[in-house]
Amino acid sequence: METVSKTAQPQVSFETSPERYHHWKLGFEGPVATLAMDVQEDAGLSPDYRLKLNSYDLGVDFELADAIQRIRFEHPEIHAVVVSSLKERIFCAGANIFMLRGSSHAWKVNFCKYTNETRLAIEDASENSGLKFLAALNGICAGGGYELALACDEIFLVDDGNSAVSLPETPLLGVLPGTGGLTRVVDKRKVRRDLADVFGTVAEGVKGRRAVEWRLVDAVYPTSQFKERVAKRAQELAAKSDRPAAGPGIKLNPLNPEVSEDSVRYTSVTLDIDRDKRVATLTVKGPEGVQPSTLEAIVAAGDRFWALRAFRELDDALLRLRINEPLIGTVVVKTSGDPEAVLAVDRLLLAHADHWLVREVIHFIKRTLKRMDLTSRSFFALIEPGSCFAGTLYELALASDRAYMLDDPEQPNSIALSGMNGGPLKMSNGLTRLETRFLADPSVVVALLEDLKPYDPQEAVEAGLVSFAPDELDWEDEVRLAIEGRAALSPDALTGMEANLRFAGPETMETKIFGRLTAWQNWIFQRPNAVGAKGALTAYGSQSRPEFDFNRT
Amino acid sequence: METVSKTAQPQVSFETSPERYHHWKLGFEGPVATLAMDVQEDAGLSPDYRLKLNSYDLGVDFELADAIQRIRFEHPEIHAVVVSSLKERIFCAGANIFMLRGSSHAWKVNFCKYTNETRLAIEDASENSGLKFLAALNGICAGGGYELALACDEIFLVDDGNSAVSLPETPLLGVLPGTGGLTRVVDKRKVRRDLADVFGTVAEGVKGRRAVEWRLVDAVYPTSQFKERVAKRAQELAAKSDRPAAGPGIKLNPLNPEVSEDSVRYTSVTLDIDRDKRVATLTVKGPEGVQPSTLEAIVAAGDRFWALRAFRELDDALLRLRINEPLIGTVVVKTSGDPEAVLAVDRLLLAHADHWLVREVIHFIKRTLKRMDLTSRSFFALIEPGSCFAGTLYELALASDRAYMLDDPEQPNSIALSGMNGGPLKMSNGLTRLETRFLADPSVVVALLEDLKPYDPQEAVEAGLVSFAPDELDWEDEVRLAIEGRAALSPDALTGMEANLRFAGPETMETKIFGRLTAWQNWIFQRPNAVGAKGALTAYGSQSRPEFDFNRT
Repeated sequence: METVSKTAQPQVSFETSPERYHHWKLGFEGPVATLAMDVQEDAGLSPDYRLKLNSYDLGVDFELADAIQRIRFEHPEIHAVVVSSLKERIFCAGANIFMLRGSSHAWKVNFCKYTNETRLAIEDASENSGLKFLAALNGICAGGGYELALACDEIFLVDDGNSAVSLPETPLLGVLPGTGGLTRVVDKRKVRRDLADVFGTVAEGVKGRRAVEWRLVDAVYPTSQFKERVAKRAQELAAKSDRPAAGPGIKLNPLNPEVSEDSVRYTSVTLDIDRDKRVATLTVKGPEGVQPSTLEAIVAAGDRFWALRAFRELDDALLRLRINEPLIGTVVVKTSGDPEAVLAVDRLLLAHADHWLVREVIHFIKRTLKRMDLTSRSFFALIEPGSCFAGTLYELALASDRAYMLDDPEQPNSIALSGMNGGPLKMSNGLTRLETRFLADPSVVVALLEDLKPYDPQEAVEAGLVSFAPDELDWEDEVRLAIEGRAALSPDALTGMEANLRFAGPETMETKIFGRLTAWQNWIFQRPNAVGAKGALTAYGSQSRPEFDFNRT
Repeated sequence: METVSKTAQPQVSFETSPERYHHWKLGFEGPVATLAMDVQEDAGLSPDYRLKLNSYDLGVDFELADAIQRIRFEHPEIHAVVVSSLKERIFCAGANIFMLRGSSHAWKVNFCKYTNETRLAIEDASENSGLKFLAALNGICAGGGYELALACDEIFLVDDGNSAVSLPETPLLGVLPGTGGLTRVVDKRKVRRDLADVFGTVAEGVKGRRAVEWRLVDAVYPTSQFKERVAKRAQELAAKSDRPAAGPGIKLNPLNPEVSEDSVRYTSVTLDIDRDKRVATLTVKGPEGVQPSTLEAIVAAGDRFWALRAFRELDDALLRLRINEPLIGTVVVKTSGDPEAVLAVDRLLLAHADHWLVREVIHFIKRTLKRMDLTSRSFFALIEPGSCFAGTLYELALASDRAYMLDDPEQPNSIALSGMNGGPLKMSNGLTRLETRFLADPSVVVALLEDLKPYDPQEAVEAGLVSFAPDELDWEDEVRLAIEGRAALSPDALTGMEANLRFAGPETMETKIFGRLTAWQNWIFQRPNAVGAKGALTAYGSQSRPEFDFNRT
């Protein structure tokens, strides 16, 4: 059904660091960091397009995500971030259209998903880490550029008679502002729907006083005052932070996994790939050996602290699965290690949850688990003897579509909860995974958390904590049939089904972005009116005008 | 991009009545109605498929919607409804797959939208009209059949060793249970997500005790007890109703519009179609002449009461637009008449809102306006001298994507609010349209409703009640350019944009169905894995097995 020829997708490496950035300049001055976009046209992930006018591809967003992460961990003394541009009169032209046009459907979808997660990470830092963001729009700000601004706490726009904010996707490209744009306009900035409708259809956007009146930006200032006003406001935002007055932070070193044809091996995470069966096995090892037992020891351990290290590795493994392994439909989730060691780390995290670094570690674990919730693969947790699905690692079973637990009297096997299952690791629907699981009876969750005992297989089934507990005679067949059966189903139907079943309960702006906006964008990303031979996305930048089938659906 | 040849879509008439039903038998006994499915195989809307095993097409659903409507208006003495089947061992096999397979993308989407609205009307009757629904599943209940059961308050399933509930869409057809199925399973019945995942992938479904344990049904009874248990429970449900003990109700007579090539003319509504411009004009006339001023007079007027008549006509006009006029992208919304006459009807409705009939009228208006919210066309309200956008009819402007109000000092022009804008006509997000509009500042809504004065164009703009108020010199050009500009945009991008901008604020189960589930289903309804030459929907019932592109998106 792909009617436009697609270029080969670039192979992607996910890790980066400021000294290797092509597209952003990260500067620090007192409590304020400046993250300035200066996209290098010829440094896109693919040579097939040039990143003109501060337009971006996935590689630009990797650097943005990395910068935000590093400010959180490496620079606790930073309390506010100014997001700006080093290009004259241009803030950002949005996602690169030639990149989008040349991409496969799956690449477009994963690009939007990742950039959405990056913008939500900005909002997470603001809400939970005392790090405030000011978008300083020093020039035109279109599409994904404005969506980045929308993710910031405040937006200042230069009033130079030319600079405007815009979401030109609908009029120019026949697609949606799908990186949270439509949702944030009406749900975060609470722009009136009729004004949002006008805004979403005028390619040239809105500038000056009207942009303020319509709530699209918080303030406009003439060029002569702009820098000063931005600097002043950044200081004010920084003053509201509860981050420490001084560092040092901890260094996030490269993960350096061992990558082979069929596996990726980190220190605590292993990803094994069976391409014939289209199944991957993701194994997380619990903490081994002596673990930090004090705050000082956690800080000293830095990125070697198991809780941070294991989840950074898991995050990287999930991204590799998403982007580099599209044919792997099912992920078997395993753990190995001592449950008591996981629970000890959980106790340590909870005891020091107010410390800036521990807070960062907890929110990082939370974001990684959300990344798992939003990964369109089927996850089956296998809970076997020798595993450590306890506390934080039991969240891996909760995040899975199903959990099978071996019930073999000869081989003890248990799961356990901790306080980490009771609040710190909320899903994007605003509930914990336990609350979502037991939506029918919230009192079950209260009772489970009051009595933090281990559960053997039968107890776990009765408590509703695992899906099934086959005995040793049935285990192999039952698990094998479940995995084989899954692999035979339509991957699209599974993606849709999982996206609907995983997020029971309330919807938030975040789930609205991934549920409603993304699903509509994905629909449009397949429609001939966008991607067909005469579709608007295809026609953009060529001599020909789009030709639409005007039937409404 | 349509790879499967589609049969011509049937022309559809929307109105029906029990004596003309092909597929349902409606019976009454005391306070309980029985709505029994008995689908006539050869009476589908198209001769291209046979409606075997109580499978359904849109025509079957028109009758279901009609029956529920008539019970509400014509039979106030009915307090509970048993939904069952007259076929042995079969409740309902769901939407007819051969119909789906032979349908265009737009037809599939509109079919699902309408059937979703019908199921939500059942839940609306339960929540707001004291009419309780018991699904009595006397046999196999699959797909859309189970989705109908999910819309009922309670589900009883016969325990005969064979009868099961199932959602086989994913395993058999590569599509979703998109008529609310996935959402209602986890959000209404609060089935645990891992069990829902299993349920959604086993074609044979779940029966007996397990169906109760998984919360898929409320009770199972052996065949010998089934009828008696259903009858007993129906009486218990009926006893909870606040509907009157006895009728009479009012008769819903046929609307009998005058239909020509380019217009549909009812008594209070006119739909004029300009096919060249792809624009329709929908005009609603306010009340004329002497209106009922007492409860008795309302009952005596019956379906001639303007408030009911006008919105029944509007509902019919919206359905005709959706199903029969897919090329009409923009709808200009107008009113004509005396604003004071509309406000007088509003006062009457509010004064008697507790009376069963007035309650029904108000909820019918509410559902019609929701139908407008969910219609994927651009609505532009034009507020001109001689119009009556007041109270309930001002909701038409609020439901529109934009509202333009002519500001001509020579021709007075005003809008006005009433108590009807303050609560009775909630959107599917659970908020009023005013609350949704002023999400940024709820105190604005309170202030607007405290002082129910008319607004001239400048006042209306300042109060944020209309989008723009061009003067008489600019009016024609500004309106023309807006309408022409809209017509030039991608209809798909507009559908997606409108679906995202119209529902700011909280999400409910209802908005989740239309936003998240529907959007994903629409995506899947385009995917080659479902509708391609070797897709699962295409392959169903043929000798060949589907062949999937297993890339995950």
